[in-house]
Amino acid sequence: MNKADKAEKAEKARKGHRPDRASTASTASTVIELQGHIIDSLILPRVWGAIEDAGAHFHVQEMRVGQSELEESYVRLEVSAESEARLADLMGELQRIGATPFVERDAQLEPAPRDGVLPDDFYSTANLPTSVRIDGAWVEVARIEMDVAIVVDRERGVARACPMHTVRAGEMVVVGYEGVRIEPLERPRQREAFGFMQSAVSSERAKSLAIADVAEAMRDCRARGGKTLFVLGPAIVHTAARQYVAALIRRGYIQVIFGGNAIIAHDVEAAMFGTSLGIDLKTGQGVEHGHRNHLRAINTVRATGSLEEAHRRGLLGDGIIAAALEHGVEVVLAGSIRDAGPMPGVITDSVQAQGRMREACQGVEVCVLAASMLHAIATTNMLPAAVKCVVVDINPAVVTKLADRGAALAMGLVTDVELFLRELDAAL
Amino acid sequence: MNKADKAEKAEKARKGHRPDRASTASTASTVIELQGHIIDSLILPRVWGAIEDAGAHFHVQEMRVGQSELEESYVRLEVSAESEARLADLMGELQRIGATPFVERDAQLEPAPRDGVLPDDFYSTANLPTSVRIDGAWVEVARIEMDVAIVVDRERGVARACPMHTVRAGEMVVVGYEGVRIEPLERPRQREAFGFMQSAVSSERAKSLAIADVAEAMRDCRARGGKTLFVLGPAIVHTAARQYVAALIRRGYIQVIFGGNAIIAHDVEAAMFGTSLGIDLKTGQGVEHGHRNHLRAINTVRATGSLEEAHRRGLLGDGIIAAALEHGVEVVLAGSIRDAGPMPGVITDSVQAQGRMREACQGVEVCVLAASMLHAIATTNMLPAAVKCVVVDINPAVVTKLADRGAALAMGLVTDVELFLRELDAAL
Amino acid sequence: MNKADKAEKAEKARKGHRPDRASTASTASTVIELQGHIIDSLILPRVWGAIEDAGAHFHVQEMRVGQSELEESYVRLEVSAESEARLADLMGELQRIGATPFVERDAQLEPAPRDGVLPDDFYSTANLPTSVRIDGAWVEVARIEMDVAIVVDRERGVARACPMHTVRAGEMVVVGYEGVRIEPLERPRQREAFGFMQSAVSSERAKSLAIADVAEAMRDCRARGGKTLFVLGPAIVHTAARQYVAALIRRGYIQVIFGGNAIIAHDVEAAMFGTSLGIDLKTGQGVEHGHRNHLRAINTVRATGSLEEAHRRGLLGDGIIAAALEHGVEVVLAGSIRDAGPMPGVITDSVQAQGRMREACQGVEVCVLAASMLHAIATTNMLPAAVKCVVVDINPAVVTKLADRGAALAMGLVTDVELFLRELDAAL
Amino acid sequence: MNKADKAEKAEKARKGHRPDRASTASTASTVIELQGHIIDSLILPRVWGAIEDAGAHFHVQEMRVGQSELEESYVRLEVSAESEARLADLMGELQRIGATPFVERDAQLEPAPRDGVLPDDFYSTANLPTSVRIDGAWVEVARIEMDVAIVVDRERGVARACPMHTVRAGEMVVVGYEGVRIEPLERPRQREAFGFMQSAVSSERAKSLAIADVAEAMRDCRARGGKTLFVLGPAIVHTAARQYVAALIRRGYIQVIFGGNAIIAHDVEAAMFGTSLGIDLKTGQGVEHGHRNHLRAINTVRATGSLEEAHRRGLLGDGIIAAALEHGVEVVLAGSIRDAGPMPGVITDSVQAQGRMREACQGVEVCVLAASMLHAIATTNMLPAAVKCVVVDINPAVVTKLADRGAALAMGLVTDVELFLRELDAAL
Repeated sequence: MNKADKAEKAEKARKGHRPDRASTASTASTVIELQGHIIDSLILPRVWGAIEDAGAHFHVQEMRVGQSELEESYVRLEVSAESEARLADLMGELQRIGATPFVERDAQLEPAPRDGVLPDDFYSTANLPTSVRIDGAWVEVARIEMDVAIVVDRERGVARACPMHTVRAGEMVVVGYEGVRIEPLERPRQREAFGFMQSAVSSERAKSLAIADVAEAMRDCRARGGKTLFVLGPAIVHTAARQYVAALIRRGYIQVIFGGNAIIAHDVEAAMFGTSLGIDLKTGQGVEHGHRNHLRAINTVRATGSLEEAHRRGLLGDGIIAAALEHGVEVVLAGSIRDAGPMPGVITDSVQAQGRMREACQGVEVCVLAASMLHAIATTNMLPAAVKCVVVDINPAVVTKLADRGAALAMGLVTDVELFLRELDAAL
Repeated sequence: MNKADKAEKAEKARKGHRPDRASTASTASTVIELQGHIIDSLILPRVWGAIEDAGAHFHVQEMRVGQSELEESYVRLEVSAESEARLADLMGELQRIGATPFVERDAQLEPAPRDGVLPDDFYSTANLPTSVRIDGAWVEVARIEMDVAIVVDRERGVARACPMHTVRAGEMVVVGYEGVRIEPLERPRQREAFGFMQSAVSSERAKSLAIADVAEAMRDCRARGGKTLFVLGPAIVHTAARQYVAALIRRGYIQVIFGGNAIIAHDVEAAMFGTSLGIDLKTGQGVEHGHRNHLRAINTVRATGSLEEAHRRGLLGDGIIAAALEHGVEVVLAGSIRDAGPMPGVITDSVQAQGRMREACQGVEVCVLAASMLHAIATTNMLPAAVKCVVVDINPAVVTKLADRGAALAMGLVTDVELFLRELDAAL
Repeated sequence: MNKADKAEKAEKARKGHRPDRASTASTASTVIELQGHIIDSLILPRVWGAIEDAGAHFHVQEMRVGQSELEESYVRLEVSAESEARLADLMGELQRIGATPFVERDAQLEPAPRDGVLPDDFYSTANLPTSVRIDGAWVEVARIEMDVAIVVDRERGVARACPMHTVRAGEMVVVGYEGVRIEPLERPRQREAFGFMQSAVSSERAKSLAIADVAEAMRDCRARGGKTLFVLGPAIVHTAARQYVAALIRRGYIQVIFGGNAIIAHDVEAAMFGTSLGIDLKTGQGVEHGHRNHLRAINTVRATGSLEEAHRRGLLGDGIIAAALEHGVEVVLAGSIRDAGPMPGVITDSVQAQGRMREACQGVEVCVLAASMLHAIATTNMLPAAVKCVVVDINPAVVTKLADRGAALAMGLVTDVELFLRELDAAL
Repeated sequence: MNKADKAEKAEKARKGHRPDRASTASTASTVIELQGHIIDSLILPRVWGAIEDAGAHFHVQEMRVGQSELEESYVRLEVSAESEARLADLMGELQRIGATPFVERDAQLEPAPRDGVLPDDFYSTANLPTSVRIDGAWVEVARIEMDVAIVVDRERGVARACPMHTVRAGEMVVVGYEGVRIEPLERPRQREAFGFMQSAVSSERAKSLAIADVAEAMRDCRARGGKTLFVLGPAIVHTAARQYVAALIRRGYIQVIFGGNAIIAHDVEAAMFGTSLGIDLKTGQGVEHGHRNHLRAINTVRATGSLEEAHRRGLLGDGIIAAALEHGVEVVLAGSIRDAGPMPGVITDSVQAQGRMREACQGVEVCVLAASMLHAIATTNMLPAAVKCVVVDINPAVVTKLADRGAALAMGLVTDVELFLRELDAAL
């Protein structure tokens, strides 16, 4: 295509060939701005794409583009849509990508009508660093997580993320989209172990390299006194990999553990009988119906009254739960409807369990989600985007689902959790 | 191989070539019997296989084999193992396959030491018709399900299946293996739609044929006044298939529904906004972060106080929950830790939810598990083996896991739940 | 974050915090330009990202950004890298994204050293519209496909895409990166059925909507007299869906079919015996080892000498191959090492089969890849990016692999191929 | 159920409740016998099940059952079906399970009508040790494999397995089912690493144990001077695991390699550029379109004329192909239609490639199928059932498909091939 062709094509684009768009009347508009590495971090393209997908329009008012990969850019756009309602919906989306309203106004507030009920038009958060403007001052929202509301205490000048069911009647909740600012994550200037918005995961990559990166992140975290969270699924015991988790606990690499009834019941079964669901962990051989040892293990701990008491009586061996109890690891066990027993210590109420998990998430810097789905989804829902998340599962669908879910710095590893933990322990 | 060779080989087998086995001393033994179509129903081979795998031995005392496919067989075996403990373990397994102790004794009973704690050596059930011998009489165990204990009331001469956490201190629990009889399922004489122990599932079969079989089972069940249970996952709403479920409810094909917070929240979101997780169900188009409508739907129902009240106010449209409320379908919604909200009506305590599900399972004859994993596993744990179970999921791992899980009459369909429900509705 | 904070942050970015980058000496540089909807089509962000990932640098020389979603943009960048070799590698990548060298030079040419061997530094194509500059004039490359060389005939002023093994000694091959221009696909201004670079696929979407879009594309193609290609895997016969393909052939919706030995052997087995791998397609029941009918079907056709002769003798019934022979559909059957037989008509040499497939791909506008992996990968390797590709498979890994593979206008459907074809036939 | 109930139930079974079966007239019958550990090896149950599924009948003429797990059993049955054709079909199936006709007759022979065409009613083999009766003598069939014909040379008194396309006009082919004897595999008396008919595979088992078993089988094989075959997929290079395969070659553990164009092209790309499909194997980082190095590697080897010449010139480094060339490993590279290039040495004709693979399979005792599908399926089609097969893939569907496919002594490992090979190398 020569230059004349190109010019003609551009001209055509300017004029006629999208008449359907030109005819849409826009009756509502606002001005937004974007700042930072907005091009290679995909913020500008995603903002434009979202506007186009919504059938809305934009007009560039000002644009300063960084002249090299080291410089930031700045764009101010007027966005117009066919109604205020559409514009409000679109603005919610643009803010999550990283746009902020150009005209700074205070956030609008409305009181919660009842305990556990938000105002209709409540602002729904992203899991990125977020500030709200209260009485002219920008205030950072504490305990930010995905898809919750923001409650503001104007007197104390503070704001916090607030899950729907925890709001109390009369608390002031941010509504609409004004007065909210989100700091998007930027693309690192160079390749990093924890990929930026890299949801693509593959079993066809060299895992040894990736495991070395995970080990480094955990080593750094321990050195800083940071918290590393492991979310554990029962396959860890079935595959005879509990010893590696126990070793990591003893070596100080794990501060928090989330799991369910199964992982702990299997861990105790392994300690008491040397089996997991009836499979002998030394020989790999099992019986046709192997639930009996599993149930006996639970029953025995129930008879003692608690995991702590069972540990005192020497029933828990040297597995995960024993190591956790000995090393002061915070363990949150959340129950589910498929549980047998359950084990003492398992929180059977899901709302209460979420609350305990939320508390325990505070301060977590690295999170390894290993062969878990239910507990892993619940966890990724709660974590800020900046936490380095490693999702390990042999099922690519699980890895994709979890790596896509909020964590901006996710590493998805489609691999065998037993061999992963063995290598990780060796690499640390 | 000519006859001489064969004879020699058989001779060799009789004599030397397994010296390792002959040397194991057996100090404990008992006699069992098997009756029925034990060869083609794989009962005899599995009994022999289990004995061999356990390193134990058997000796045939009596054997009468059916002379054709119409006649039953009978076998009496002495089983010997190296210790009483080993023998007891093995007997537990053999009973689940279908063996019964030859010498009829009463079941041994021990009191539960504490609320929610069973005696150490409690008998763990299969989900097959089971009887216990009390004071010389065989009594059927009520509410049989997999992996629970049996509580006996000698005075009233009754027995019931009893999940561990529901036992009360002092209740009499069956221990050991004597005095328990299980009626194994037999292989049907001809191919049937609901395969006998057929865990192999495939996406490479003609689903239209299978769907016709499911339709027939549901039609028969409705004609008999039986109960059909649907366990529903949220993909049913994402794929715009809720209309088919609602239609089946209105046509009287569904009596019980199990689900979680997500399926109902999405159903209500679809009714209120025409979207599912922000995806427009009419166009398939969506926004980048579509949780907002989802949360608004939950919040709006919370504001009314209950699903029933929301329905009275006309907020629930004509979807699944609306149809269920209008047609008196029993809906059990069990929460989990990944839930937002939750919706009013969702039971957040997993033990309480299990209890409600157990009640609702009574009398169920057909069960369709559609695009659900957590709720489906919990359900299959509770159902007797004779319930016809249809597992539908696009993920073969889910279908295998569920079809393997107890239900002896399972049909596993690796297919698209939207197209499955559409075809099923059309076939009924 | 207030404006002062933002300014400070930007300042910091400009100065210190990437010292590692500043220290890299760049000794080679060139100038590229980008034109069109380069921001929302992700061309500019991907160019910048590729430069950063390569550890290279850029400097904006000119930038004119479209002021609304209707206007195009233009950017001219200087790209610098640490060596000419690195720069050349990077340029190859940037060109594939859509960059063109600013200074127009003729393409460099070198003769192929031997039959089937390219010059060392051959230019490797993208599957996008590509032109080369020959003696000052831009010439479009004929038969463009992914990952092949470009052979130029200067005398006739023509250029063609050339797979490695087809080059003849002495033919002039484009080397280096100069004088090559690629026209990138641009993001449509509105959502379209065939997603732009949308590799994400999901089983959790409403397939009925998507199937309607596929039907529309096929209807349009037939109305225009265009060619639709179906690539068929054997599951189509196993699932009893061959009738739908045969119907689409008879109704004029399919012009070309690619498949292997298995699909045709199963189609003939179904015609002769009513089975597929021994499974009765009317009842779904089968024998333990069902290969016998399959082998007999192949043997019978072999005895007649050809599919055409078998058809004349009435052996092929009314399935896929019968319909294709009757309606003049071009069928290319490519063999593989797992084949039994093979069927007459199957091309056993893979290079020869590729050649036949390449010919048959010319003019194809819509391509449906149904339950095929080997043949589907081979096909997507050959198709220009502008062909509308629909990938249908129940295995998400297959859909992802194929949808990612070159086709820029791909629709990935994780669904059941039987139910897909049934719906598609009904929707047309 | 008390004894009276049981008797009544048995009586009912004998009389009325299967009237549909009794009414089927049987006009064709024959007598078969079964010998060995036919109950726990599932031979008798499968024979009965197959007869029932076919709607046929049996009558026990003689039955002697082993009195313990050490003794063999013997059964003679009359089998009757509604027609000779049905009976012949059923007999084919029963023979594959392990039944032999009681009356010994010579195998019936018919000449092949044309080159590559078998007689209509040709006998189709199982991959188990098979003998045919020629002129009163039992002769073992050489080169047995699944789903081929048997060609007999009466003069020389020999028989061989014969793929359809290799038969020559006039060669005598076994037809019908008489005079053929198959020796079924028997269940080992104790658990073994290589499971008997154990197609169930799981990622939730301890792989370290299984890998130790594979190592032992390979060590034994090497010690005996046996042949171990590795079938390799390209993921082995992508995951940077080629070094482990090369090490196993150098240590004498691999005698034969099957693979395709991709594995070798990637191996050479890794040697020349340190990348695999453009991914740097040292850092895991890659470019957007990484096929260039891949094509260059192929082109470079093509320029030298052969892999051997490329190796002489030092271009192949120390990877798989270099090690194989240095250690005299037999490498069969079979091409497919998705190949680029192809590499010199790749056999592009699938029939010719099958022939070479068949030759190379002779004498193989252990076979490791690693991250391969096409080549692995082709291989399992050719191997006798007695070869110990290890299927390693991260995709459970692949493992199930391959482990089900004939090999009676298969071990299916759903795991990460990189970590598997690393552990295997360490365990040897």
